Amino acid sequence: MSKETTKDTLLEAGSRVFLERGYNHSGIEMILGEAGVPKGSFYYYFPSKEEFGLQVLNRFAERHGADLDRILGDKSLRPLERLRRLVEATCERLESQHCRNGCLVGNLSQEMADQSEAFRTRLEEIFRGWSGRYAECLKEAQLAGELAPDWDVHELAEFLLNSWQGAVLRAKTMRSTAPLRTFLNLIFGFVLKKV
Amino acid sequence: MSKETTKDTLLEAGSRVFLERGYNHSGIEMILGEAGVPKGSFYYYFPSKEEFGLQVLNRFAERHGADLDRILGDKSLRPLERLRRLVEATCERLESQHCRNGCLVGNLSQEMADQSEAFRTRLEEIFRGWSGRYAECLKEAQLAGELAPDWDVHELAEFLLNSWQGAVLRAKTMRSTAPLRTFLNLIFGFVLKKV
Repeated sequence: MSKETTKDTLLEAGSRVFLERGYNHSGIEMILGEAGVPKGSFYYYFPSKEEFGLQVLNRFAERHGADLDRILGDKSLRPLERLRRLVEATCERLESQHCRNGCLVGNLSQEMADQSEAFRTRLEEIFRGWSGRYAECLKEAQLAGELAPDWDVHELAEFLLNSWQGAVLRAKTMRSTAPLRTFLNLIFGFVLKKV
Repeated sequence: MSKETTKDTLLEAGSRVFLERGYNHSGIEMILGEAGVPKGSFYYYFPSKEEFGLQVLNRFAERHGADLDRILGDKSLRPLERLRRLVEATCERLESQHCRNGCLVGNLSQEMADQSEAFRTRLEEIFRGWSGRYAECLKEAQLAGELAPDWDVHELAEFLLNSWQGAVLRAKTMRSTAPLRTFLNLIFGFVLKKV
């Protein structure tokens, strides 16, 4: 494997292992084993486990950012319909993994925000980026007359993001998508209807 | 120290250490050190770390259950006002700890739901208990004409609980109570107003 391929393989393996076991509970040997990369080579690619973790996080955020761009940028749909599609896409992904694992950003926030300022800062930047994109879409909905003009779209976007993270968390203990469906019902059937 | 006192001291120490560092990242020696209890005595009191963790969780749930009974059972206040007081009490607690640590039940859900069926089952029971108490209070609000009769109070209670957990999670990365205030504003200023 080339240097870049090996690095990619390690980051992919890290993402899977962190999603399944969390950061602190995942040893470097376990990640190397999952990646099928020889023991001892980890520090050739990454200066520390923390730096590795941050790169895993960045990669996850980039991919999810691309999904956000694609779904929320789909001008063939009304803005609120795009937001609904985004939520439904996440529902389907979580369903396909039997409501395990959750969201890597949510999980690492829970686990690492108090333990590493580098993680906390990066996680908060990612959340802000997501919330900013939701707010843009909500603003479009207002301009299109789909959403009451008196909503503060930034506050509403924050509420949606945080409430969704809570629903994803609860799906893990319930081992069911019911919390995600409840979120969809109440947000799209009720909260965002108030024009 | 008597046997019961030592056991209590260990459970208290476990609660603090798990809140700060999570379950997997907290060694038994660290908990013994925090408790000031001699090394080696842990397994005299608890058959395993998992059983200890479940007892820490039960104790946390009992205490929070007592708070719920006290605040939601205060018949001198209107039902929705009681719910608001409950949220505000948690806001104050989180503010006093600088938005660190979060909720032990939320944290352990994130960390342990996929790793231990004993934890997952117990965590889900606790969430259901809380949600059931919110639903009772919401039902009282409906009977008092404070809340529209067409709300499904169980679905609404689940939504409130999960969204609140998400707000508490986000408070950790933001290191601010802003997500909790946003929750309060939107839920009490808007969602629950729809009579």
